Amino acid sequence: MNIHPMSLISEKAEIGENVCIGAYTIIHDNVVIHSNTIIESYCELGVSNHLSQGEKLIIGAESHIRSRSTFYEGSSFGRGLITGHNVTVRERTIAGENLQLGTLSDVQGHCKIGDFVRAHSNVHIGQHSHIGNYVWIFPYVVLTNDPHPPSNVMQGVIIDDYAVIATMTVVLPGAKIAEGVFIGAHSLVGGSTEKDMLYSGSPAKKIGLTSKIKLKDGTGQPAYPWRKHFHRGYPRDVIEQWNKEQLGDD
Amino acid sequence: MNIHPMSLISEKAEIGENVCIGAYTIIHDNVVIHSNTIIESYCELGVSNHLSQGEKLIIGAESHIRSRSTFYEGSSFGRGLITGHNVTVRERTIAGENLQLGTLSDVQGHCKIGDFVRAHSNVHIGQHSHIGNYVWIFPYVVLTNDPHPPSNVMQGVIIDDYAVIATMTVVLPGAKIAEGVFIGAHSLVGGSTEKDMLYSGSPAKKIGLTSKIKLKDGTGQPAYPWRKHFHRGYPRDVIEQWNKEQLGDD
Amino acid sequence: MNIHPMSLISEKAEIGENVCIGAYTIIHDNVVIHSNTIIESYCELGVSNHLSQGEKLIIGAESHIRSRSTFYEGSSFGRGLITGHNVTVRERTIAGENLQLGTLSDVQGHCKIGDFVRAHSNVHIGQHSHIGNYVWIFPYVVLTNDPHPPSNVMQGVIIDDYAVIATMTVVLPGAKIAEGVFIGAHSLVGGSTEKDMLYSGSPAKKIGLTSKIKLKDGTGQPAYPWRKHFHRGYPRDVIEQWNKEQLGDD
Repeated sequence: MNIHPMSLISEKAEIGENVCIGAYTIIHDNVVIHSNTIIESYCELGVSNHLSQGEKLIIGAESHIRSRSTFYEGSSFGRGLITGHNVTVRERTIAGENLQLGTLSDVQGHCKIGDFVRAHSNVHIGQHSHIGNYVWIFPYVVLTNDPHPPSNVMQGVIIDDYAVIATMTVVLPGAKIAEGVFIGAHSLVGGSTEKDMLYSGSPAKKIGLTSKIKLKDGTGQPAYPWRKHFHRGYPRDVIEQWNKEQLGDD
Repeated sequence: MNIHPMSLISEKAEIGENVCIGAYTIIHDNVVIHSNTIIESYCELGVSNHLSQGEKLIIGAESHIRSRSTFYEGSSFGRGLITGHNVTVRERTIAGENLQLGTLSDVQGHCKIGDFVRAHSNVHIGQHSHIGNYVWIFPYVVLTNDPHPPSNVMQGVIIDDYAVIATMTVVLPGAKIAEGVFIGAHSLVGGSTEKDMLYSGSPAKKIGLTSKIKLKDGTGQPAYPWRKHFHRGYPRDVIEQWNKEQLGDD
Repeated sequence: MNIHPMSLISEKAEIGENVCIGAYTIIHDNVVIHSNTIIESYCELGVSNHLSQGEKLIIGAESHIRSRSTFYEGSSFGRGLITGHNVTVRERTIAGENLQLGTLSDVQGHCKIGDFVRAHSNVHIGQHSHIGNYVWIFPYVVLTNDPHPPSNVMQGVIIDDYAVIATMTVVLPGAKIAEGVFIGAHSLVGGSTEKDMLYSGSPAKKIGLTSKIKLKDGTGQPAYPWRKHFHRGYPRDVIEQWNKEQLGDD
């Protein structure tokens, strides 16, 4: 394909060079798609509502949006966005480069996401979430924002760089997940957390240093900070920087 | 749009005045859509199966069904239905007015839902659920029905008026959630509950009166009953009635 | 319908006799669909990626794939596959006969699934899962695989015949769920388990024999092994075999 004849593309949309658009995909007026990007079938980009206020949806270069995904106007994504299928992203989502959003993820908008964030399948990112760089969020994690629902008080969560949130965890309103923290699967976590610590349980308790967790690959090396051993999909300059950090070697 | 030329609409469907239908949407025979309703793109309404028995799907006036939603025959919705994207609603779902169903919600049918119920994203409403009026259900909540799966015994849950069920909670088969109860996030709740009480944990325990929870808006007023302070999206006559109730002021 | 004129079907796809294909469905090159199968609207079958290596997607006879489902190349399904809506199935999923995958289920590929497996709505089957025969998996269950995410270590879960995993449960990497085990709702289960035992909680503990759970149908008979009383949807020869087993009667 290139632009599939069974797609519906507004003449007002700005489509870069070498962009592929699949069958039955709809691109509305206020959409900018940068070069070398793939938009698969059944996607709808640039949906408007009363909150998007006619602002543009910007998709960075070298992106790949898989089928059945819905993006509203008024959001922007740096280069290298990759999504699974059936992703929904509302207005006022501002994301850096190389964001990955898994199948069925649901980004409620009005949030900020850094660079190289990896959200796996079926992640729910509530409004007013602030996510740093190199964060990992695993399936069925919910980031909340209302401390006593329903109300008009909004306390988005803050997740710092390199944090990892394992599957089926609820992050409570206003929680601060510090750099390098690991939240175990099926946890309920709130309040403040300490850097490079493991928390687990419902409600989550501090278990100890993440560096105490050993890799089950036969080496017995620490599994965290994960960037010491896990480099798949990161660019060479990032990995070189990590290699210079001498993490946990002091 | 009004009726998009790339939609497939049965001539037997009854479409009211001023109804908008999006691209690639399919409307089957036994569908009645009342006036001033928006059906977005990629929706399929009136899917039949052996349980729907050819009964009509009725969508009330002033409704808004967002894209990729699937509704079966044999269900009915009062005026003001609003859905997110990718909602699935099976046969024999009988709902009152002003129902909201969030993105990815999955209503399994054979259930009753009152007026002004708000289900957020990714809520799973099992068969034989009975939900009252003004109920709130937050993301990734599952309402179950089989006490020892798999079996032929069905014990749907009952949720009374003004109850609130926070995110990632499982409501066990046959549970009775009383009026004004608040179930905390990531809970597993079963059995009977007492009016206006907070339950939390897995398994959930009674924590105390919901009115002990204070609003984090600087006023320090009780956060529950929520209808004392949260009025967004409700009609004036409902709010006036709530204002007369003098809840918790005795 | 039979083959809807608004579908897009590759001439290279092999479509058996009496196959029905719905509107707006896309069938790519490397797809084999056996006879008497229904593919509903908005499905996309045979999506390719760098991992599918151009191998075929094979859908057995008498199957029914509901709307908006996405299947990659390089997977195969025995006869009688039934899916809900919005199902996603990645490459290298090898499944036996009569698999049921509920609405919004997400099969990540590189896994093996036996005969007569029933996965309900919104089940997440991680890569390298091995699932036996006659297994039941209920809504929002996640089968994981990485013991210290993110890493390159993959420890898929193993689920033996007749096991039942109730709603909102996380099965930890490398867990072995033995034959006839029942995992209660909202549990976090890891490690090894003993045959015909009930486990529940987060983290899950051994509670006792599943046969101690009594049917709430007035008979007071044991609810497990479930195949003593629950036969809906299984073929006669399977039920006759179960009737001969005299389970729990010794």
